[in-house]
Amino acid sequence: MSQDAFDPTLDLVLERVVEIPKEWIWEAWTEPKHLIHWFTPVPWQTTQAEIDLRPGGLFRTTMRSPEGQDFDNSGCYLEVVKNRRLVWTDALVANYRPATKTYLESFNFTARLTLEDHPKGTLYRAVGMHKDAADRKRHEEMGFETGWGKVLEQLIAYMKGVKG
Amino acid sequence: MSQDAFDPTLDLVLERVVEIPKEWIWEAWTEPKHLIHWFTPVPWQTTQAEIDLRPGGLFRTTMRSPEGQDFDNSGCYLEVVKNRRLVWTDALVANYRPATKTYLESFNFTARLTLEDHPKGTLYRAVGMHKDAADRKRHEEMGFETGWGKVLEQLIAYMKGVKG
Repeated sequence: MSQDAFDPTLDLVLERVVEIPKEWIWEAWTEPKHLIHWFTPVPWQTTQAEIDLRPGGLFRTTMRSPEGQDFDNSGCYLEVVKNRRLVWTDALVANYRPATKTYLESFNFTARLTLEDHPKGTLYRAVGMHKDAADRKRHEEMGFETGWGKVLEQLIAYMKGVKG
Repeated sequence: MSQDAFDPTLDLVLERVVEIPKEWIWEAWTEPKHLIHWFTPVPWQTTQAEIDLRPGGLFRTTMRSPEGQDFDNSGCYLEVVKNRRLVWTDALVANYRPATKTYLESFNFTARLTLEDHPKGTLYRAVGMHKDAADRKRHEEMGFETGWGKVLEQLIAYMKGVKG
């Protein structure tokens, strides 16, 4: 397993205590039928998702802009530990093949989602790892924290509806 | 585990039956004290090697040209199955962070080494995966098959000396 190293000069993090169990969050992140309902900040939509949930498996989504333009994003899962840990990168695609293009066009990133039990529900931690400080800054200015925070709110509301 | 998919339009392969046991090959690939003796085609030398043998672990070597120029190369292990399977990429570095530069400067590749028992010793298969046909061609023209074949001969001769 990779380490949980965090380099504040290169990485970004969103950490929240959320009021739903980690099993619900895992389901939301790993089943296409759930993911499409919360994965992009409205008014953007996720119209398709493909999830081959194994190290080396493809993670592909199609996002649609409010103007109706579609954006395909592909990545590769690196670590899959049910209900606890999901690591993927858009620097690679299926079976770890180097990617032809990046989701963000200008740079790649690796994401590490970890879920831990917490007295109030789940400690949710999403880390974005970048190759250098310039990429980190660009991703920050694109609204990493706001964006990931907003879709987490959407995830919680959606899964409460599914389970409630 | 990733799949053994092979795409002839994107991938290169070196497959050989070699007369030493797969355990010796595994040792040669995964212990710096061995790797430095065979990893680069003479008259190039490998002067340093760092091997953190776990998924997400760093694989770093320094190669020295016949003229004395040093080249640092970093990558990340993706799959580590003792005596059987080693997958790594130079598109990432330690803990799956996207890489700042590539060993080959112009493109990244993912390597998959598999070892199988064979009546004559070991079936050795090394696959190089590329993002597109142009990268595959460039790597082929750089002498992928000759280079990997030559260092495999060096590995065999060296390990026979160590074990003999």
